[in-house]
Amino acid sequence: MADDGSAHQVSRRGFLVGAAGLAGVAVGGAVGGVVGGTVGGAQGAPEDAGGRAVVPFHGERQAGVATPPPAFLTLVALDLAGGVDRDALVRLLRIWTDDAARLTRGEPGLADSEPELAAVPASLTVTVGFGPEVFRVARRADRVPRWLGPLPPFGVDALRPEWSDGDLVLQLCADDQVTLAHAARVLVRQASTFAQVRWVQQGFRHAPGAVPSGTTMRNLFGQVDGTRNLVPGRDDDLIWVGDGPLAGGTGMVVRRIAMNLDTWEALDRPAREQTVGRRLADGAPLTGNAEHDEPDLAATGPDGLTVIPGFAHIRRARTDDPRQRFLRRGYNYDDGAGRDAGLVFVTFQADVAEQFVPVQRRLDELDLLNTWTTPIGSAVFAVPGGVAPGEYLGQRLLV
Amino acid sequence: MADDGSAHQVSRRGFLVGAAGLAGVAVGGAVGGVVGGTVGGAQGAPEDAGGRAVVPFHGERQAGVATPPPAFLTLVALDLAGGVDRDALVRLLRIWTDDAARLTRGEPGLADSEPELAAVPASLTVTVGFGPEVFRVARRADRVPRWLGPLPPFGVDALRPEWSDGDLVLQLCADDQVTLAHAARVLVRQASTFAQVRWVQQGFRHAPGAVPSGTTMRNLFGQVDGTRNLVPGRDDDLIWVGDGPLAGGTGMVVRRIAMNLDTWEALDRPAREQTVGRRLADGAPLTGNAEHDEPDLAATGPDGLTVIPGFAHIRRARTDDPRQRFLRRGYNYDDGAGRDAGLVFVTFQADVAEQFVPVQRRLDELDLLNTWTTPIGSAVFAVPGGVAPGEYLGQRLLV
Repeated sequence: MADDGSAHQVSRRGFLVGAAGLAGVAVGGAVGGVVGGTVGGAQGAPEDAGGRAVVPFHGERQAGVATPPPAFLTLVALDLAGGVDRDALVRLLRIWTDDAARLTRGEPGLADSEPELAAVPASLTVTVGFGPEVFRVARRADRVPRWLGPLPPFGVDALRPEWSDGDLVLQLCADDQVTLAHAARVLVRQASTFAQVRWVQQGFRHAPGAVPSGTTMRNLFGQVDGTRNLVPGRDDDLIWVGDGPLAGGTGMVVRRIAMNLDTWEALDRPAREQTVGRRLADGAPLTGNAEHDEPDLAATGPDGLTVIPGFAHIRRARTDDPRQRFLRRGYNYDDGAGRDAGLVFVTFQADVAEQFVPVQRRLDELDLLNTWTTPIGSAVFAVPGGVAPGEYLGQRLLV
Repeated sequence: MADDGSAHQVSRRGFLVGAAGLAGVAVGGAVGGVVGGTVGGAQGAPEDAGGRAVVPFHGERQAGVATPPPAFLTLVALDLAGGVDRDALVRLLRIWTDDAARLTRGEPGLADSEPELAAVPASLTVTVGFGPEVFRVARRADRVPRWLGPLPPFGVDALRPEWSDGDLVLQLCADDQVTLAHAARVLVRQASTFAQVRWVQQGFRHAPGAVPSGTTMRNLFGQVDGTRNLVPGRDDDLIWVGDGPLAGGTGMVVRRIAMNLDTWEALDRPAREQTVGRRLADGAPLTGNAEHDEPDLAATGPDGLTVIPGFAHIRRARTDDPRQRFLRRGYNYDDGAGRDAGLVFVTFQADVAEQFVPVQRRLDELDLLNTWTTPIGSAVFAVPGGVAPGEYLGQRLLV
């Protein structure tokens, strides 16, 4: 552990921890490890340097995709105003780039009216994505990825316009809600002459450190959610676009999935476990002993039926095609009392049409979990590659 | 620091820290200190035992008033169903008592359908308060405190029924949003045959440990908010009811105060500082050097005017009557992009009429801050004293 307050370059993935003042720092060196610091004051209350953790904004790829998910999410979709042309769009992207670089360092935005609220970076990331309209306004309609646009309709969908689509998306993640509220406010205010807010979605996971790092999140159905996930570093070809104008970028899908706690809670535990094909206690497949055991889809029980039923979510989500996978980075949402609850299901994949759509189609055809879940919002964005100092977000894609 | 996993009785205020597994524990021994644990894994990612911190449910007084405010708040107001009589009310209070005791220990509720979501106590507190209807149903209308009921109307109010009043309130606070969502869900579901949800309010402060403990919170106007607060231990006679049926209890006021960020941000910093009478940077009064310096309300500047203007919030909030003070335990709220933002202003005081109302009346008459803030919800509850093992919430008040 380092005990000073200097900045530490901690891994090949380029995380930077700025641990100011009284902080001791413990650093996760593994790919995908959480970066942050904790320190216990011997006599006083414990202090946690997690508030000082910085995820670098600049890099080959945008942060907020392969970087570990902090506790809180705010997604803001915006629609471009009528008169915005290519020059105005570039001005907005320059402003956002500059402010995002500052805010993620724990510094106020350029026109920040509450600079004190910017002081706790708390692993803040700002990720920007584009809908097709951005390409059109930039006069680069020829570069719209073929998968960018509304997903094909699914039978389970009950989509509402107020949770769907958008010309631009800001994905903000942080381990502190005050930080997140302030950063979103600054970026939305800076955009006010260029774009109007279309929808805002907020989500949460466990607090920083409340569960051991690397623990798969649980959704509000109590399910271990996201076990079979892509792994940044190992599966980069499935997450990131390799070449073309979107090189270093990715495709982002946002699905707002309402979860009916009332009807779910009426099921007994065996029925719930069969619905998913995993045990609730530990997320192990019904044929296995531990969360990451490979499910045995062929195994049968004493009754001759498959242990993992035909309708089970994990059976339906699987395929022999290794490309039909994507990086899940979802967050729970809740009105506070479980009356309006669900998942802000965010996925990243190099090709939405090849990787996401076929899986969703299979789940649409048959997945018992559909009984209790309803997609009520849907949006797809192209996330441009990262930004080098001096560049603006999307520059290489739109120039 | 203790390094084992046993429970530690840490202070005369009876906080208990259960630090399981790999946790090292740092304990705040001072009155009002934050209780929790942090530990840095030398090689792996940091682990934080804050998720394991337990605030005892049982005690002479209910937790959630004098205990340090965790990062997140959920307030649920409920209205009793038509047919609920005294016996049914007692059944509900017994159920809530039992479930609250379990959940705050990190254990599932008795009929908990998602026991895994209860595993992280994260300093969860459950505090229950009563509106006048509870006393009537319990046939104890003679015990309704004279201050229990809607506050007198104020000129600044724009109260909405959907944020006001209620027969019962559940105040849940925790350092983890998953914990909070689950606990609220369990308690609301258990109440479903007895009461309907009237409103839900959620709020946040900085994440556990993101700022040094003891730091006064900032609201979304960037102001240091709550400097001149009552101090549990020192000011107990102003916080807690001393005798009578509500002995060991307190009065709770909930005001939902909308804050207009658009118009506030249009002000320059000097104008904002004059509005409140404190500096934005550090919360020091305009006549002082540090946050907790006593304001000099008589001091004049070179122009002959008082340095702290006549309309300033801190001047108007003050009085020579030392009883006109209350414990503030507010939380920020925000829609995610600052379009619907403000403060869930929660106060506790032994006598709402004597302590809260006169201050609010002075602020209603003149307080420049009213230009940018609007109370849109208001509710008052009687919080009964604490619960000994075997008792139920409110038993001594209602029997």
